[in-house]
Amino acid sequence: MLIGVPYLNYSVILNVLGGLLRFLGAIMLVPLCVAVYYGDSLYPFLAAVIITGMTGILLSHRYKATTEWKAREGFAIVAFGWLAAAVFGSIPFMLDGFSPINAIFESMSGFTTTGATVLLDIETHSQSILFWRSMTQWIGGMGIIMLFIAILPKLGVAGRQLFRAEAPGPTEDKIKPRIRETAKILWMVYVFISIIEVIALLLAKMSLYDAVTHTFTTMACGGFSPYSQSIAAFDSPLIEGIITFFMFVAGANFALHYRTLYTDRKSLFKDDEFKFYSLVIAIATLVLTFSLWKDMGETIFNSFRYAVFQVISITTSTGFATVDFNLWTDSGKIVLLALMFVGGCAGSTSGGIKVVRILLLLKYAQRALFKSVHPRAVKPIKFNEKTVPDDVMQAIVSFVVIYIMIFAVSTALLSLMGLDLVSSITASIATLGNIGPGFGLVGPMANFDVVPFVGKLVLIINMWIGRLEVFTVIVMLTPEFWRR
Amino acid sequence: MLIGVPYLNYSVILNVLGGLLRFLGAIMLVPLCVAVYYGDSLYPFLAAVIITGMTGILLSHRYKATTEWKAREGFAIVAFGWLAAAVFGSIPFMLDGFSPINAIFESMSGFTTTGATVLLDIETHSQSILFWRSMTQWIGGMGIIMLFIAILPKLGVAGRQLFRAEAPGPTEDKIKPRIRETAKILWMVYVFISIIEVIALLLAKMSLYDAVTHTFTTMACGGFSPYSQSIAAFDSPLIEGIITFFMFVAGANFALHYRTLYTDRKSLFKDDEFKFYSLVIAIATLVLTFSLWKDMGETIFNSFRYAVFQVISITTSTGFATVDFNLWTDSGKIVLLALMFVGGCAGSTSGGIKVVRILLLLKYAQRALFKSVHPRAVKPIKFNEKTVPDDVMQAIVSFVVIYIMIFAVSTALLSLMGLDLVSSITASIATLGNIGPGFGLVGPMANFDVVPFVGKLVLIINMWIGRLEVFTVIVMLTPEFWRR
Repeated sequence: MLIGVPYLNYSVILNVLGGLLRFLGAIMLVPLCVAVYYGDSLYPFLAAVIITGMTGILLSHRYKATTEWKAREGFAIVAFGWLAAAVFGSIPFMLDGFSPINAIFESMSGFTTTGATVLLDIETHSQSILFWRSMTQWIGGMGIIMLFIAILPKLGVAGRQLFRAEAPGPTEDKIKPRIRETAKILWMVYVFISIIEVIALLLAKMSLYDAVTHTFTTMACGGFSPYSQSIAAFDSPLIEGIITFFMFVAGANFALHYRTLYTDRKSLFKDDEFKFYSLVIAIATLVLTFSLWKDMGETIFNSFRYAVFQVISITTSTGFATVDFNLWTDSGKIVLLALMFVGGCAGSTSGGIKVVRILLLLKYAQRALFKSVHPRAVKPIKFNEKTVPDDVMQAIVSFVVIYIMIFAVSTALLSLMGLDLVSSITASIATLGNIGPGFGLVGPMANFDVVPFVGKLVLIINMWIGRLEVFTVIVMLTPEFWRR
Repeated sequence: MLIGVPYLNYSVILNVLGGLLRFLGAIMLVPLCVAVYYGDSLYPFLAAVIITGMTGILLSHRYKATTEWKAREGFAIVAFGWLAAAVFGSIPFMLDGFSPINAIFESMSGFTTTGATVLLDIETHSQSILFWRSMTQWIGGMGIIMLFIAILPKLGVAGRQLFRAEAPGPTEDKIKPRIRETAKILWMVYVFISIIEVIALLLAKMSLYDAVTHTFTTMACGGFSPYSQSIAAFDSPLIEGIITFFMFVAGANFALHYRTLYTDRKSLFKDDEFKFYSLVIAIATLVLTFSLWKDMGETIFNSFRYAVFQVISITTSTGFATVDFNLWTDSGKIVLLALMFVGGCAGSTSGGIKVVRILLLLKYAQRALFKSVHPRAVKPIKFNEKTVPDDVMQAIVSFVVIYIMIFAVSTALLSLMGLDLVSSITASIATLGNIGPGFGLVGPMANFDVVPFVGKLVLIINMWIGRLEVFTVIVMLTPEFWRR
């Protein structure tokens, strides 16, 4: 395919993809060890390591990296990189007996940290397969941090100034001016917080296996669990509390976490996005607690317990559940549905439209109201005490417009395949926003296997587009991308 | 209330409202004549004429108009003008036995040309009451044309350049430079097309009463019908065809109609908004025809017949029905739901976000994609071969953001009152978009009486805000509006 397009430097693209696959092949040694430990079949992971690693080595040697990428090569590397990870990452699932479409769905859901699953009875699968399933999310989470901090700003995607501003610590302060260094630091923060979560969960009497797999999927805002009852399987307020806290952390900006940990203790609480993120969660929790208490006849304590967990789980696009919220009354569901369109903070592992975009759109609308009364007033939009440039606002608006269009088309396609209105709407937004479960047929205790083949393809594309901040994929559909 | 706000010139506001009520009182003589003709009780209309007319005369005499309005007085006049029309227009309904909230709901639904009804059994009401109900929509339609062409541009609301550009015939060509003249010409076009529709419906063997009442509500994109089965009551493809055509006309820009009729025959087909409006309707009709044929087992002819009528009825925010679309499968409903967010053309009597806003947002997003590949390229957004200024785009974005916020809050409130998800969503958008019926409890053959008291208040406010292009009402909630 790429050979017909002489103007794109496919050599550098394939070279980088080769490096990525070598890395992925090496990573697959971890679930192989898990399989050895639990006495599971080694064949799925051995084959995966060999196929992925060999493909990576072949590509790296066949295609040489040239000096510099341009934006177009960058887009192609990001988009095809995620696709390649999903395809090669699905090999263990295929060899475990998944149908090809289901294997790729589950793998894409993993690497995009979505958490939508096609597994009918999760507990029947081997521990090494479920370990790999959780681990794909943790690797995906690393990829997203890399994408936000190191790649998107270089590509000028969706408001480069904004993403640059989102890594205020390391870049602005000129401590570590190089992007590669920045990414390394943020990965260390990611690994460091992950280790703390594992320890906390072990102290709450989780097994090591459960603590590691759930940490993988909490920190990535992913939501896969080796249990079909998700976090409800533990029925422990302490474990719920720990996971709630770490979901909240994973949904906030990792560059801010770095600054809070190493530079300025108050960084988090000075940040406009983090304040708005906390406000949205607080209000939604309040409304949902009221709804559960009033309509579901729960006690105030239980209402709050379920509400705060589910609000943070959905806002951060994790998708864990402590209760089958599909059984709630519609007022509770509407709170969750609204949160699905918000998402977490930029620079986090969460999905969705992102809090900062919503906040800036609201400020934009507020300014328009002000200008209706004072037409000649000059009133710049401020974010963290700095003026937001016009091209950032334009990028945000364009992002949301394309996002809503994709959501609408995907919803229409699913409903034409026979899904009901609520399932179509929530399956679309839950995959595009990288959340995981929706309502109806695709509720938290159900699974996506009910979606027909073509519908699964649509949802796989949704997860892919949503994770790569829309533009990275959509830009490849424009004729300009392929012209000299 | 206004006395406490010394900086707002309430004298001019009350003077203009007085003039409006005198006009409304005089208009009420028409249903009084209808009541005489049909031998209905005269008391509701006599009382309404006297109360409305006297209030109008008192206000006009007590408060004097000063030389010039400022923007703030303009906002207050428009917002309170529509409110006053709804309140005084509800007098005949109250005296006919409606509860006050139901009377104001029905009257607001009329003057905002929404068409949502609380009537349980429409046919039990007298012909004069149903005539007045339909007539409120026709008067509301006149008001909207006045608002778009003459008032909003003066207030600088939501992209004054856009609305100015939307009245290209009379204003740009300098034929009739004065706004009052423009409004008069467009009203004549409105009356002229209305008369043609009455004649067409009479030729299709409708009674004069039915022809006039349905013309009132077609031309206003209103959708009230004296029959609870709406247009299905006639079961005539010819009548459906005529109404479909005139809904399509009423959903397009009246300034363009003027130009097409009197200046340039090809004006309509040169207009970007009209072309996109036709395209949206064509695609939606195609998809809906397919859905009805595939899922509902209808013949191709019937599928197309129902689809084209319902697509145009919803897109233009009329809300007539030839079939209970609440019984359709969800793929059909999703097409209609998406159209509810689009609406008709600016400068028409239709509601919704409006086609031109959607079109410009899509062009905006398309430009952003182009700029991802060519970051330094300058590419202005064009509408009808002219560059769209930045402040128009800002106004559009702000409009849509506030619109979606109101939709979300109203949906959440309704669901907290116990309405199900689909009814809450569609009742909100159907009133905010001035469409009329939704799905679920508020379907086309059902009515809004099931909504609890506070919910009706929310929906009344939705209709009011939606009709006045959001800003006109919302701006009064900002502190700046009330400060010197």
